[in-house]
Amino acid sequence: MTSSAPTPTTPQNGAPGKKTLGVAAIGYAFMGKAHSNAWRNVGSFFDVPAFEQKVLVGRDAEQVAEAAARYGWSESATDWRSVLERDDVHIVDICAPGWMHAEIAIAALEAGKHVLVEKPLANTLAEAEAMTEAARAARARGVQSMIGFNYRRVPALALAKELIAEGRLGTVRHVRAAYLQDWLVDPDSPMTWRLNKESAGSGALGDIASHAIDQVLFLLGDTVTEVSGRLHTFVDSRPGADGPEQVTVDDAAWATLTLASGAVASVEVSRMATGKKNSLTMEIYGDKGSLLFDLESINELGFMDATVPVREQGFRRILVNEPEHPYMDAWWPQGHVIGWEHTFTHEIRDFLTAIDAGTPPSPSFEDGLAVQQVLAAIEESADAKSAIIQVSGH
Amino acid sequence: MTSSAPTPTTPQNGAPGKKTLGVAAIGYAFMGKAHSNAWRNVGSFFDVPAFEQKVLVGRDAEQVAEAAARYGWSESATDWRSVLERDDVHIVDICAPGWMHAEIAIAALEAGKHVLVEKPLANTLAEAEAMTEAARAARARGVQSMIGFNYRRVPALALAKELIAEGRLGTVRHVRAAYLQDWLVDPDSPMTWRLNKESAGSGALGDIASHAIDQVLFLLGDTVTEVSGRLHTFVDSRPGADGPEQVTVDDAAWATLTLASGAVASVEVSRMATGKKNSLTMEIYGDKGSLLFDLESINELGFMDATVPVREQGFRRILVNEPEHPYMDAWWPQGHVIGWEHTFTHEIRDFLTAIDAGTPPSPSFEDGLAVQQVLAAIEESADAKSAIIQVSGH
Amino acid sequence: MTSSAPTPTTPQNGAPGKKTLGVAAIGYAFMGKAHSNAWRNVGSFFDVPAFEQKVLVGRDAEQVAEAAARYGWSESATDWRSVLERDDVHIVDICAPGWMHAEIAIAALEAGKHVLVEKPLANTLAEAEAMTEAARAARARGVQSMIGFNYRRVPALALAKELIAEGRLGTVRHVRAAYLQDWLVDPDSPMTWRLNKESAGSGALGDIASHAIDQVLFLLGDTVTEVSGRLHTFVDSRPGADGPEQVTVDDAAWATLTLASGAVASVEVSRMATGKKNSLTMEIYGDKGSLLFDLESINELGFMDATVPVREQGFRRILVNEPEHPYMDAWWPQGHVIGWEHTFTHEIRDFLTAIDAGTPPSPSFEDGLAVQQVLAAIEESADAKSAIIQVSGH
Amino acid sequence: MTSSAPTPTTPQNGAPGKKTLGVAAIGYAFMGKAHSNAWRNVGSFFDVPAFEQKVLVGRDAEQVAEAAARYGWSESATDWRSVLERDDVHIVDICAPGWMHAEIAIAALEAGKHVLVEKPLANTLAEAEAMTEAARAARARGVQSMIGFNYRRVPALALAKELIAEGRLGTVRHVRAAYLQDWLVDPDSPMTWRLNKESAGSGALGDIASHAIDQVLFLLGDTVTEVSGRLHTFVDSRPGADGPEQVTVDDAAWATLTLASGAVASVEVSRMATGKKNSLTMEIYGDKGSLLFDLESINELGFMDATVPVREQGFRRILVNEPEHPYMDAWWPQGHVIGWEHTFTHEIRDFLTAIDAGTPPSPSFEDGLAVQQVLAAIEESADAKSAIIQVSGH
Repeated sequence: MTSSAPTPTTPQNGAPGKKTLGVAAIGYAFMGKAHSNAWRNVGSFFDVPAFEQKVLVGRDAEQVAEAAARYGWSESATDWRSVLERDDVHIVDICAPGWMHAEIAIAALEAGKHVLVEKPLANTLAEAEAMTEAARAARARGVQSMIGFNYRRVPALALAKELIAEGRLGTVRHVRAAYLQDWLVDPDSPMTWRLNKESAGSGALGDIASHAIDQVLFLLGDTVTEVSGRLHTFVDSRPGADGPEQVTVDDAAWATLTLASGAVASVEVSRMATGKKNSLTMEIYGDKGSLLFDLESINELGFMDATVPVREQGFRRILVNEPEHPYMDAWWPQGHVIGWEHTFTHEIRDFLTAIDAGTPPSPSFEDGLAVQQVLAAIEESADAKSAIIQVSGH
Repeated sequence: MTSSAPTPTTPQNGAPGKKTLGVAAIGYAFMGKAHSNAWRNVGSFFDVPAFEQKVLVGRDAEQVAEAAARYGWSESATDWRSVLERDDVHIVDICAPGWMHAEIAIAALEAGKHVLVEKPLANTLAEAEAMTEAARAARARGVQSMIGFNYRRVPALALAKELIAEGRLGTVRHVRAAYLQDWLVDPDSPMTWRLNKESAGSGALGDIASHAIDQVLFLLGDTVTEVSGRLHTFVDSRPGADGPEQVTVDDAAWATLTLASGAVASVEVSRMATGKKNSLTMEIYGDKGSLLFDLESINELGFMDATVPVREQGFRRILVNEPEHPYMDAWWPQGHVIGWEHTFTHEIRDFLTAIDAGTPPSPSFEDGLAVQQVLAAIEESADAKSAIIQVSGH
Repeated sequence: MTSSAPTPTTPQNGAPGKKTLGVAAIGYAFMGKAHSNAWRNVGSFFDVPAFEQKVLVGRDAEQVAEAAARYGWSESATDWRSVLERDDVHIVDICAPGWMHAEIAIAALEAGKHVLVEKPLANTLAEAEAMTEAARAARARGVQSMIGFNYRRVPALALAKELIAEGRLGTVRHVRAAYLQDWLVDPDSPMTWRLNKESAGSGALGDIASHAIDQVLFLLGDTVTEVSGRLHTFVDSRPGADGPEQVTVDDAAWATLTLASGAVASVEVSRMATGKKNSLTMEIYGDKGSLLFDLESINELGFMDATVPVREQGFRRILVNEPEHPYMDAWWPQGHVIGWEHTFTHEIRDFLTAIDAGTPPSPSFEDGLAVQQVLAAIEESADAKSAIIQVSGH
Repeated sequence: MTSSAPTPTTPQNGAPGKKTLGVAAIGYAFMGKAHSNAWRNVGSFFDVPAFEQKVLVGRDAEQVAEAAARYGWSESATDWRSVLERDDVHIVDICAPGWMHAEIAIAALEAGKHVLVEKPLANTLAEAEAMTEAARAARARGVQSMIGFNYRRVPALALAKELIAEGRLGTVRHVRAAYLQDWLVDPDSPMTWRLNKESAGSGALGDIASHAIDQVLFLLGDTVTEVSGRLHTFVDSRPGADGPEQVTVDDAAWATLTLASGAVASVEVSRMATGKKNSLTMEIYGDKGSLLFDLESINELGFMDATVPVREQGFRRILVNEPEHPYMDAWWPQGHVIGWEHTFTHEIRDFLTAIDAGTPPSPSFEDGLAVQQVLAAIEESADAKSAIIQVSGH
């Protein structure tokens, strides 16, 4: 190019002859913002099929229009059903509240749209089962679906998965999983829909234990056969609009999980752990090594290799920022850490890549259902004075 | 003193007119070595009543003689009963195995000796109750007794106790207690008496969960009303002298404890946590603050004060080495850390001081019994598929 | 909105009646990618004046076209001079190599464009002075300029600045600044332009000591009066295309800086610190408190408040992720950490905001020059056997 | 042993036919307390030749008598010269202030006593040279001597030494040594003899930089050829008995050291580093690995092995508490950490063992002199505006 005239940009993504995938996202609150950010950036770092951020859907026309402009969507809309009818929409990304998941997801799959749905899969086991059934049927027609357990795309946890799969821990014996937050510490913090069982399904259990349990399943490649569980609400009444209201979900939950392999996992979650902001910790103990992770230090993985001489054993802090680490060759030079938000960037990269390849993305709705079944068993055990309960299907 | 002649040393401990307390210790293995070390050093750092390391008692005459010389005792002996008859022995420190505690302790108390007994109080609840009864009776006669939960004398945990008692955490809501070790990771590690229920009573539960549970009780000043528990043996057969032998105790244990105050504590212990060497961790979450502790960093306490402005909140690492900290004005200048062994030095300092003052030392046999009752309830719950069990006395 | 028709997005940024700022960026390598990312995302998180990513400029037409498409620019171009002539370009962001900074920046300022230039300001002191002069003249005409010391926009360091400015450290006495990397550890790592004094100006000194020194100036709000310095090249020959080539820049540098306030700062930088990936550490010691920072844990600030009772003093780890923290109310809920890249997002947010307000952005070219003067003095001292040298202007 | 009669203890140390070594210690302040503690305990943990804590010497008859009783010495005395004349004293341990070292040590060596002297060797280079000469002469007569750089006996640093000697770091390129304390932060802290150049020799330089420099020499097995140094007094006047007095020693010091191998070490020490209590940190960077150490975490060593695959590289935290670690097989089971005081226990163990074997203990007075020469060169450089100075002998 010898001329000095500027060159208009042409889309860089996608192979020739492939159609550009139109994307619709539903919801523009916390998760909608996070997913939009991922859609806006994934193509700048990863080679993904060509796509377009077509339309953002929300209930409030003005707010969703503002959000669409801010987050990089070409259009906004308020009626998700009519969006499902559009021919230029091929992917539906569901960031709406949990009680809406089933209806939208099933309709979208039936309309032939690939579906990404935020976790948890649904508020009830029945809905989760229906969604899984719909996903199976759709998959047979080449329509893909995925549940958004984004922490599977934390590079440090993806590295943990690799190390375990390679046998570096030997036989995993026990796991300590915890997810501790503190945003409900103040007893005068007001009542919200999240603290009402009817709207939220459950409290810390569904919201954050779901992540912890999915990590157990993901990292170990195992299934849960039985559980003992316990739920507790420390502050059972909070200020509502018209006086005190009853909190009907758990503030904290505890469980032990028996895995098919014989391993045992403990799970502990709380929204009352003063000083812990967003601390999903995983400790995995095998007979040849161990791993430690804390989401508050998202770019680090602790690894103890018990096969080196005792004299030099110790947990090493791997800064998961090297091109050799999962997802990291797309980013910055070593030591230039990435943030929480890119768990979604990686998720969407993998989702798009699978769609392009015509292969089922992972984690599937089945994976989401498996987590729901464990959550349901924990609730059942909690109702039965913590007595051990078989997990559905086992 | 103008002359250059050397001056023979005269004992520095003890007030005039007070008798010198004669001490007998029973046992010279790990705990005997640790207690002897404390007796040998306590007077060099603390002002304690005058005492003498009279006699070390053990089964093997030659070995106990060698140990007595090495550890600073004037004599050795093999028959603990005749030692109890000696007029120059006023204190008996029992470091013998758990199954011997009840017999020796009760006899010593009846002989009018002050008794310090290593934890756990006994291998069975019945023995623990008998010992507690004997201690109550002896106390009425001015004969004191103490159970050796030495971790109450870790300066960082004593500081934690102070902060909680002063209300710095506000209402404590939940506690995470864990004690993780890894000395049984290797499945070819041989069978020992510690892995046999008959000789050891239990496995990780009695050995290390007892410490974790005592810390819950100590730090919160609370009692346990009910528990759900689980025990697991990952390696149930190990090489014995004549082929494989059955391991009949737990390698790991899990429990949730309901406290009288309404707080909930989780307890998790393991001898299979690869890379964790001696990691007793306590996390205490209150509505005004939190505390973190790890025995592997014995001189540190993590403290989160949630009453300071949010902008500057964070867990602070207190290096518990200042004269302002419990026990620390006796030691070295700030930053010159002390080791695990001095939990015993502090314990014996407090024991001697209480004897001198004629006040009951703490923790008492009642405190030891309270821990035994929780352990028993955990075993009972584990046998009942983890269903919640009332703790004896509640 | 009752209809189900989608609503096309209208730009959300900018006040009515304000023109949309056209942006040109020059360079698409590491820094070009990082700046592009910031331009692409800043409007999704912050309220900034309306702007457009007009054109990306680079030498290789094909590569820059590809980069422009990938990074969100409307056009690409190869001739930066003609871009400066465009009326629809109001901002020039210079990410080209250091030896090009002066020529482009001065031309852009003279063409009335606001200029953001990557650090270091220039490869020579003479160029830096000319640029600073041009910036002063332009500022008088309402044309703004800024040097890209992006680490001033790390929220944790911005918080550190606040705490120091508020007097929370009292009188700062000494500072330990270090920037340690390890990408040159391997002696067989090949020769590059970065290791040649003619093209790179200097080695670790200009590349990373510049950041460390800017932080000293930024955090303390102080100036350097004199320095002692030392440079060293551990591997002075590396494989080139046609055999070994001479490395003519420093692998590591050391300096002590005297500050006008009387404080003393040490600076140590290296590209040979095996295991340190991108570790800019700042330790600031005042008579009322101290601060610790490590870029590898970018979301954390260590704060020791020496005004609280000794018993509870300790470095606290502030997770700088609360809405109360600088820049953080725009991002995610607490504990959802952000990455290195957003130092640029914040930088561009502040740059745009200052342009909009017609106020000079900070850090200015003067600030960049101040760092260059210190670097030059360190080189001079290193040439004079480390003897103390007055910094130009002092 | 079938009888129940107690057996009086017989000394367990020492081989048959060897004489029991009589020990005299001079000084009963901080160092005297620490050394006495080591003498009192070394035989309980290590197999050492038979010795007796004969006599403690001090200026105040009453106080030294009290200290002797408290710390386990048989006698006390006030005249060190007459103690040197005793036939039953074979070892003299000098814990008196630095200005007394030369006179006592030389007299003791000439009297045929083995000598252990606390660091620094002396307050002046001339005295240190005379002592070294005396030690050489005594050694030829079988009389041994040792300088008390106790941190060589920190197990973690002894392990570091092993790893470096085995080549695990490859070629060491640079070292960062720092020793930070904060006991002089308060400007109203009173004047003491330690802050007066005449009595103390120097400030932070001699007191703590000496340790840091000795570690550089010890760990690398290298010598210093030239230095650049800087000294600073932040608070140059402090309250004395009769009004303000001039502080004539340094509060902080900085230096770079060139080593014979080509490595470069930086040294930074301060008594003004608020929040750092006793933080001697060593960072050693080689082309195959690195080591990190902090005395505040005395039982830990950070090790980065750069020869393992990049994917799993990271600093590992070795808890130096295994029987495989230097000195540790004598102590407690794994994870039961030891304290600062046992650096002296190990030192005396090695001293006694060398005496028994008739081999020169290490570090020798020559090693102490080498450190003094570096300190002197730093002072000289500081007086010469930090210009590089050759170290005496190089």
